[in-house]
Amino acid sequence: MNRMRLFTPGPTSVPEEVLLEMAKPIFHHRTAEYRELFANCTKMLQQLFQTSNPVVTLAGSGTAAYECAMINTIPSGGKVLALSNGKFAERWVTIAKRNKCQITELKADYGQAVSPHQVAEALSKDTYDAVTMCHSETSTCTVQDLKAIAAHVRKTPAILIVDGITSVGAIDVQADEWGVDILVTGSQKALMLPPGLAFLSVSEKARKKVETITQPNLYLSLPHYLKSLADNDVPWTPAVSLVRGLNVALSMILSRGLPHVFKSTHAYASATRSAATALGLKVFSSSPVDSVTGIIYPEGIIDKEFRTALRKKFNVHIAAGQGSMEGKIFRISHMGYVDAYDTLGVISALETVLRQQGYRFTFGAGVAAAHQELADQLG
Amino acid sequence: MNRMRLFTPGPTSVPEEVLLEMAKPIFHHRTAEYRELFANCTKMLQQLFQTSNPVVTLAGSGTAAYECAMINTIPSGGKVLALSNGKFAERWVTIAKRNKCQITELKADYGQAVSPHQVAEALSKDTYDAVTMCHSETSTCTVQDLKAIAAHVRKTPAILIVDGITSVGAIDVQADEWGVDILVTGSQKALMLPPGLAFLSVSEKARKKVETITQPNLYLSLPHYLKSLADNDVPWTPAVSLVRGLNVALSMILSRGLPHVFKSTHAYASATRSAATALGLKVFSSSPVDSVTGIIYPEGIIDKEFRTALRKKFNVHIAAGQGSMEGKIFRISHMGYVDAYDTLGVISALETVLRQQGYRFTFGAGVAAAHQELADQLG
Repeated sequence: MNRMRLFTPGPTSVPEEVLLEMAKPIFHHRTAEYRELFANCTKMLQQLFQTSNPVVTLAGSGTAAYECAMINTIPSGGKVLALSNGKFAERWVTIAKRNKCQITELKADYGQAVSPHQVAEALSKDTYDAVTMCHSETSTCTVQDLKAIAAHVRKTPAILIVDGITSVGAIDVQADEWGVDILVTGSQKALMLPPGLAFLSVSEKARKKVETITQPNLYLSLPHYLKSLADNDVPWTPAVSLVRGLNVALSMILSRGLPHVFKSTHAYASATRSAATALGLKVFSSSPVDSVTGIIYPEGIIDKEFRTALRKKFNVHIAAGQGSMEGKIFRISHMGYVDAYDTLGVISALETVLRQQGYRFTFGAGVAAAHQELADQLG
Repeated sequence: MNRMRLFTPGPTSVPEEVLLEMAKPIFHHRTAEYRELFANCTKMLQQLFQTSNPVVTLAGSGTAAYECAMINTIPSGGKVLALSNGKFAERWVTIAKRNKCQITELKADYGQAVSPHQVAEALSKDTYDAVTMCHSETSTCTVQDLKAIAAHVRKTPAILIVDGITSVGAIDVQADEWGVDILVTGSQKALMLPPGLAFLSVSEKARKKVETITQPNLYLSLPHYLKSLADNDVPWTPAVSLVRGLNVALSMILSRGLPHVFKSTHAYASATRSAATALGLKVFSSSPVDSVTGIIYPEGIIDKEFRTALRKKFNVHIAAGQGSMEGKIFRISHMGYVDAYDTLGVISALETVLRQQGYRFTFGAGVAAAHQELADQLG
């Protein structure tokens, strides 16, 4: 009878209002009804992205949207400055490699951000078609200083393509104000939807690049999406039920207000970080993002046993580390349909299982620290 | 208070059991729970496709899956024999063009099938990497003789890539028995799901081609899907809620039994064709498919006014013609969650609106003919 508490950094919990909206009878997409729904979603997506540029919706994962951004703006063999500090940034490098791009990688260790200064330096030495990066690197729970980086990139001919998959709707990202040319996100993160939709905003600078590119892929052909979007239409059959859910989810987010959403997400993340410290645990990232917290396992706690106990005993679902971080860290999402009591709950569950599995600490210290932090920040 | 009756050839009606399944709380996909769900779906998809080959599930539309099939098996610049008799077949030619393939088109007029003899002749004159075709061309409501065509193709080195988007689950398609190398379908047709998932089965002959191909796209990289599938896993975040719905929808279809489903679909289509004839209307296709019927508008009936009246008065949704067929035909789906009484209902609605809009015929003749046909076929 324990309520399911999903703290994985995507999929995240979907509000009941959204689930029930998607359970309504399906309807056809080549209709005025669909175009009206879709136009409304696009308008709200623009508010979410803080942009007046078109925001494209496609049926697919975040990987599809990021690849769409890259292949439609960077010529095959083009020059890419790739900021790389985790598994997802590495995926964007893979796409560049598959397209035979000339790649300059600016690497930071897992858990670290790339310094804007390094980016400026690299940009001063060569001319690039595009700069690729994760704003929030989900695998290492690390945020980059996007505003500062964008300020450098916008002075050059390169376009800035940003993976905002776990930043848009969770932390402040001002696409237009900061100069993010393409901002990508997915449905199953801060947008509180099931996976299956992905989104990208496209600046004028990026659209000019699109016009110069010939690339073979049809499903991810950005000109097709942009042309249809002008008529509130879609080139291929859209995921109608998910778009219907999107309409409700975005209404919920925007009626709460972005500043409030960001403030809450920050409070849950701070509370979790404070709890970790109070329990003698270490946050993995030196530049922790508010959307998801990565915590280093203390010695003697086995990843699989730990997460299994959380799941079996409390129906609390957290994520393992990815790749080389597997077994070393666990990750807790703060995105979307989460509140202060969910946050307290997950910390209570962590404490209980940590104690049962032999880790020694002052029982209750995490909950107390989180409780204090939540009260301080949210009143 | 009129129940919505969706007769568009995708999306089609989704059963309430499926809608409610998808409204259950979301869960994470990198779990044993998801792999078990997905393994079960894959097993059922193989039954649906009548194949023992792997069936890949991806998040996207049917276009994504067909493009995935083509780009991973046909080298850029490769030789393609493209059967083309409607808007969807033309889309597959577009993909071949974008990939600089050498294309030999075997065209049939809209509403006609390409003769297997023509295919045999073309195959005897040249060697192809692949043959592309629609089994059921949704835009013209036309079925091709896939079994006979496949028998010719399998004798050659070419692989046969079949758009079964409105045939799989509606009419008999025996992937292995007939020798269809890649069979593609989408979720929003006979599978009774919302759009957002697409599927492709891949024969050994096709998998051997896959091994020889280097293509840039990552999201649609078939080797990634095939490798993950071997572990009941997925390379990118799957559309979890839709996969959950898939599990229920496939269980419903298979527990009813494919022969029964095909027989019913055939009966609804026959009833609709008989009704059309009884009303003095003409079926558009000379090789009509059972999944969707296209009927030529009688003189004086205006597409938009006709469909609007059906929708407003009866909440009955049918589809217009596509491209050059717009205004000339209307289309009624018989796929998925439709029964005999829905079929009678749509014919009754058609009669009422046709009479109101000035078409002259014996009122009731369509309903009577359909009623007779349904009784004859289904007892």
